[in-house]
Amino acid sequence: MHQPTEIDLILSGRYLVTMDEKRTVVENGAVAIDKGIIVATGNREEMKSRFQAVQELAEPQGVIMPGLINVHTHAAMACFRGLADDLPLMEWLQSHIFPAEANLTGETVYYSTCLSLCEMIKSGTTSFCDMYLFAEDVARAVEGSGMRAWIGEALYDFPSPNYGELENGIAYTRDLLARYKEHDLINITVTPHAVYTCSPELLMRLGQIAADNAALYQIHLSETKDEVNTCMERYKVSPVRHLEQLQLLSERVLAAHCVQVTLEEIELLAEKGVKVAHCVESNMKLASGIAPVVDLLDAGVIVGIGTDGAASNNDVDMFGEMNSVAKLHKVVRMDPTVMDADRTLYAATRGGAAALGVADHVGSLEPGKAADCIVLDFSSPHLVPVYSPVSHLVYAARGSDVLHSVISGKVIMRDRQVLTLDENALVERVQTIIAG
Amino acid sequence: MHQPTEIDLILSGRYLVTMDEKRTVVENGAVAIDKGIIVATGNREEMKSRFQAVQELAEPQGVIMPGLINVHTHAAMACFRGLADDLPLMEWLQSHIFPAEANLTGETVYYSTCLSLCEMIKSGTTSFCDMYLFAEDVARAVEGSGMRAWIGEALYDFPSPNYGELENGIAYTRDLLARYKEHDLINITVTPHAVYTCSPELLMRLGQIAADNAALYQIHLSETKDEVNTCMERYKVSPVRHLEQLQLLSERVLAAHCVQVTLEEIELLAEKGVKVAHCVESNMKLASGIAPVVDLLDAGVIVGIGTDGAASNNDVDMFGEMNSVAKLHKVVRMDPTVMDADRTLYAATRGGAAALGVADHVGSLEPGKAADCIVLDFSSPHLVPVYSPVSHLVYAARGSDVLHSVISGKVIMRDRQVLTLDENALVERVQTIIAG
Repeated sequence: MHQPTEIDLILSGRYLVTMDEKRTVVENGAVAIDKGIIVATGNREEMKSRFQAVQELAEPQGVIMPGLINVHTHAAMACFRGLADDLPLMEWLQSHIFPAEANLTGETVYYSTCLSLCEMIKSGTTSFCDMYLFAEDVARAVEGSGMRAWIGEALYDFPSPNYGELENGIAYTRDLLARYKEHDLINITVTPHAVYTCSPELLMRLGQIAADNAALYQIHLSETKDEVNTCMERYKVSPVRHLEQLQLLSERVLAAHCVQVTLEEIELLAEKGVKVAHCVESNMKLASGIAPVVDLLDAGVIVGIGTDGAASNNDVDMFGEMNSVAKLHKVVRMDPTVMDADRTLYAATRGGAAALGVADHVGSLEPGKAADCIVLDFSSPHLVPVYSPVSHLVYAARGSDVLHSVISGKVIMRDRQVLTLDENALVERVQTIIAG
Repeated sequence: MHQPTEIDLILSGRYLVTMDEKRTVVENGAVAIDKGIIVATGNREEMKSRFQAVQELAEPQGVIMPGLINVHTHAAMACFRGLADDLPLMEWLQSHIFPAEANLTGETVYYSTCLSLCEMIKSGTTSFCDMYLFAEDVARAVEGSGMRAWIGEALYDFPSPNYGELENGIAYTRDLLARYKEHDLINITVTPHAVYTCSPELLMRLGQIAADNAALYQIHLSETKDEVNTCMERYKVSPVRHLEQLQLLSERVLAAHCVQVTLEEIELLAEKGVKVAHCVESNMKLASGIAPVVDLLDAGVIVGIGTDGAASNNDVDMFGEMNSVAKLHKVVRMDPTVMDADRTLYAATRGGAAALGVADHVGSLEPGKAADCIVLDFSSPHLVPVYSPVSHLVYAARGSDVLHSVISGKVIMRDRQVLTLDENALVERVQTIIAG
């Protein structure tokens, strides 16, 4: 007989939803993990016979799945959640959010980000892509949390409450790129805010920096009709065409929103390999419009799902987001077969990984991939009975059903207790900061 | 000094959201309850000095609000949750739901309803209006749970798996009406399924029974284009006009869905005092369309919110529903100011009470009204900080944030433990039933 191989961790549950190419779902499944990597998946008994694990997290009613990937957030905006609702985007931004942001400090960003990380971990997100101010403090918060993240300092023509003049912001970004070059979990993105806040020169300069550093080029793109109109007035072309003319559309680009795009622009995005971050609930709440996600997917564009910030959503819960994505596109197309449960779960896992350029590393539970997994409790009344685990994950599960979170093989949350952050202290600290 | 009055219960929390006419929100608020009725609301210290309560539920970070009112459910369909997703309504009904329902028994309905009651209680619903088969078993389940309910046996021209021939169904309904006439919490409705399943004679006959018994007349109305087309073919008029011609539109009517209604029909519904149950997530998932709720409200129609059954939603969580209602109408009208947080919370509480004809009895926390209240925990990361409790209740809270539920003065759930139903036993029982 073979001696069982010693490994770090086995996760086991009632169902293992791998999200592999064949969409394998294993009843009484398990994931074997060693040194942060998935070494095998399969039947629990088989895994237990092949491996001797230091730790086992066994949930007889649990569902194991890849951690969710939130491809567009402003995590620190947790501190503005509910500050100003039911307003048009420009009034919301200019009368409420920008003035509030003018008073931000690195400390506020740090603690607000930590709070958002707690919320993300507790609702099943293991990777996220952030765009905000004080990115150094965002990165510091993320390092403590153990999450996997893409982090960018928003750059624009005017002075920033963080770095002041633009040149400082570019130096700040270069510094972060260098500092996190070898980091396992943190990736720095090059981050022009949008075409209406960045000059063509800035957009191009940042394009070069992204290329030189093999970094993601994150940008808000075609979020609203106002944005399109402004761009048309200024440059005589739409935001997508504007980036094309600047030769900036490439596989390196992660474009957030893409609500107001035409079918011709969709073809162009597909051809250039641009990735899209679909932020359905923020687009709904701000009445920006409905991104043509089914057309984007049909054209072959890689689409991930993002929550956007908690100021415009007002949560960062990817389970709620999946539910909205699946349902909204059905009713808008008057076709209940579009954005089915599998396609939606794909976008929130493998699609997100592909959008971030790491499809070979995360997004599904397969040997050789990083061990980013979550375990949900499926014994609550709202998840009983089970005909299809995938249906439940998209249509019935909530963030609060997530029990455990494992990122790069490390247990980050156990029995809904976040192990890397002091949740109660954070709640108190943010309340104190807001009370001023 | 006055002697404090002895009462049954005081609920206290960080915020009391009364939903009274002035939308009073009290910081450090409390509700004083005696014999099932709210005797006073106000500041906690004041309530504590005026009243001596047998029991106090004090949550320093809690938010007290009226229990949510779900005006359209098929509770027993919990047993079909996730059975068939991503399908057109008629295929879903005819190939999956109707065949499954043909095998239903009263026992299955009883246990599935109990499971749904658990889910509703745990997500903050205290009143609901149900339409299904085996209504006697639904009522039996509800009686055990302590919830407030409107229950109707669905009637239609063809034989039913419950009562067989239609005449038996009418006798069954009459019997239930008589039996529950004096019940505090249970109300029986007269329940034609829809205009496409009920002959004009049946619709009229049931209208008379509803009038004779001062009962609600519950019906699915203008849910889909197919329904409208069928009605046009058969009667040369739309479903709304069909009911008008039969002189059935009245304040007694609770019409579920009303997705495919014209502006003229909306005026007619308003004029006749017909109430509407808006089921946004079911309409999205089945791609039935988007009910013109803003137009309905603007015309003065009373609108409550319903989840529909768990087979087409796939949950019965009113917090998720409020979130979807508020966001969908904004994006559809491209106006972020419509269906604001207050209007949405109103529809889920007072609007629902008015839809059921009991606006003077439940739906807000005011002296003299029934003590139907829930308490949420607002100390979780996703609800911190608080600028506006009402914003959080609509945009950020989840059913899982509900800690306690009090119905007619009785504590039904405490610290998320449902006290009237054995949740674990129910989960096991339903799993066993489904496994067959």
